[in-house]
Amino acid sequence: MTTETTESVDVAGGDSGRAPGAVPGEGHEAAEILASARTHVDPELRRAIDSLPGSLRRIALYHFGWEHADGTPASGNAGKAIRPALVLTAVRALGGEPAAAVRAAAAVELVHNFTLLHDDVMDRDTTRRHRPTAWTVFGEAGAILTGDALQALAQRLVAEDPHPGAPAAAARLTACVVELCAGQLADSALEARGPDEVTLEECLAMAEAKTGALLGCACALGAVYAGAGKEEADALDGFGREAGLAFQLIDDVIGIWGDPGRTGKPAGADLAARKKSLPVVAALASGTPAAAELAELYGGAGDGTRGFEGARIEKAGVEKAGIEKAGEVREFAARAAHAVERAGGRDWAQGHAADRMSKAVGQLAGAVPDPESAGGLLALAEFVTRRTY
Amino acid sequence: MTTETTESVDVAGGDSGRAPGAVPGEGHEAAEILASARTHVDPELRRAIDSLPGSLRRIALYHFGWEHADGTPASGNAGKAIRPALVLTAVRALGGEPAAAVRAAAAVELVHNFTLLHDDVMDRDTTRRHRPTAWTVFGEAGAILTGDALQALAQRLVAEDPHPGAPAAAARLTACVVELCAGQLADSALEARGPDEVTLEECLAMAEAKTGALLGCACALGAVYAGAGKEEADALDGFGREAGLAFQLIDDVIGIWGDPGRTGKPAGADLAARKKSLPVVAALASGTPAAAELAELYGGAGDGTRGFEGARIEKAGVEKAGIEKAGEVREFAARAAHAVERAGGRDWAQGHAADRMSKAVGQLAGAVPDPESAGGLLALAEFVTRRTY
Repeated sequence: MTTETTESVDVAGGDSGRAPGAVPGEGHEAAEILASARTHVDPELRRAIDSLPGSLRRIALYHFGWEHADGTPASGNAGKAIRPALVLTAVRALGGEPAAAVRAAAAVELVHNFTLLHDDVMDRDTTRRHRPTAWTVFGEAGAILTGDALQALAQRLVAEDPHPGAPAAAARLTACVVELCAGQLADSALEARGPDEVTLEECLAMAEAKTGALLGCACALGAVYAGAGKEEADALDGFGREAGLAFQLIDDVIGIWGDPGRTGKPAGADLAARKKSLPVVAALASGTPAAAELAELYGGAGDGTRGFEGARIEKAGVEKAGIEKAGEVREFAARAAHAVERAGGRDWAQGHAADRMSKAVGQLAGAVPDPESAGGLLALAEFVTRRTY
Repeated sequence: MTTETTESVDVAGGDSGRAPGAVPGEGHEAAEILASARTHVDPELRRAIDSLPGSLRRIALYHFGWEHADGTPASGNAGKAIRPALVLTAVRALGGEPAAAVRAAAAVELVHNFTLLHDDVMDRDTTRRHRPTAWTVFGEAGAILTGDALQALAQRLVAEDPHPGAPAAAARLTACVVELCAGQLADSALEARGPDEVTLEECLAMAEAKTGALLGCACALGAVYAGAGKEEADALDGFGREAGLAFQLIDDVIGIWGDPGRTGKPAGADLAARKKSLPVVAALASGTPAAAELAELYGGAGDGTRGFEGARIEKAGVEKAGIEKAGEVREFAARAAHAVERAGGRDWAQGHAADRMSKAVGQLAGAVPDPESAGGLLALAEFVTRRTY
């Protein structure tokens, strides 16, 4: 399954905050919300990270893009802060005071980054946000331990927050971490199976746990900090989850057909690694001749050597298996991408993303009936799912 | 550095709770305290683990010794529960109600086990509590993610605890997790350096962070739950830290000269892996002819291939380097052990352990002047540091 997340696909070019190719004005509100969230949350995030002992701090600062590997300051490339923005925007949507939820917003961002550090180790991903991943620079132990420390910092920010919503937020955040872990473990397990042994339903459930849960939790935390009840918080959780699924579907599409200059990883890397992303699994399940061709390309039934340990073997094996050179990887990826497209995987993913967005909008309307109040959350959801590629 | 912990050295044989070879009656109080802690904390621990989704739960139940790898029930071999016992005994020592601190005690045990799961992955340790480590059975991803989930459960237990001491406990627990991570990272860094590039001071600081911090935190949490102020909690933290250092020193001695039937790992494994345990580093720093011999055995100056990634190479390299067979490993370990002993490493470790215990007793007396009230904590500290080997 695709393990990439929002920040791995930088759509808004440079500092303009506008997606290249987007209709002028579209995404502008979202870009402003994201920039504002970054401004409010970054100092809290920096303070938390600065409290770490030197060795862990250095790795965290590198991971967040605030330092180069040699410890010199970097301009910062910490991603788009979508999750903190969701927290603060949800607070505002429900009539609360966003400034009071800055710690919770920072906590969500810390949790997100703790999972990125660990996922990159497990998936042996070598590039994130256009830079070498932390484990490739500081070793596995450094990345695992920094991730552990970031989780502790996240929990501390909420535990020490005197806000009356903090206890409920802490409960939601820890439940979310458990769900994220279960989602990543399900991902490992799915990758270990053959292309014909994985159902679309399982993959969607995995994506919901892995990607939807934290986006949902971010929105729910905003509701909690606005003083909303459980029902409203759950509805906002549902909004974030559905939007998260839509985002993952689009992210998977970008992972196959996106511009490597923007995705920050080589063209067709996911396909070359035989990732069972959602469009791929939908294509495999289509019963078309293209599905059979794709299954053939993906190597037939599971032999138990894929998945976590297998993913490494596979990545190393890409070279051994006769597609040594970049050109051959590209050719393999192009053939696979073409098969996914002919089998309807791309159309299905885009259509299903639209369905999920429509469900998200429904959940949002239930919790925030006033369209003006709901506008910010809607803008964010549309921003992450309407990215050009 | 040695990465083993209390539970890896089962001294109390079977269910008798008495260290074989110990003077009858000695350790009896500690054994009763440990058994009682297990009884009170296990249901809370089981409840927390049972709340995990199936895949994570299964790995956690295996790690705690409650299930076999195939998911069938096991009799349980979850270690000696020293940390939960310290929490509950510290509450009692300061006149509080131990039953009110059961969640905090379970949280400390969850933190301990989250670090064990991760440390075993990082150190590539294959045996814990006489069983294959979780990552060897369920893969690295399974062990890393289960560790992550256990940390979340630990934080949740404290966050959801309505006890007035819970917020202060949460702050101490998260600070402790950060210190544990820094300690383990320092350990990795020290292992990457040559035997003549590591000072005893650094190693002691690392051992304090890696082992002392959580034992100290356990005692401090007990104080907090007894309603004690910061000063008393800090003194109990100091007691736990000093006792923890004493424990680590003795554990390192057992790692070299202990009975493999009790330590649960092959004789001389730490020496064969060139672990820079405290007796080894003290021996290397002694300036004796035996120190030079030991440095020679340990392979001279650091070549940058040891440490985290290097440890794997080294473990694999044990075979390649001409000590293929168990007999040769034993011979190598025996020569190294003899050199450590002649260089005074064993005597220093035992003497320094006694010093640390005496400091621990001083800290304890400051916080709990009444010897009868302090008796339980003292018994526990003596139990873990007076183990036979």
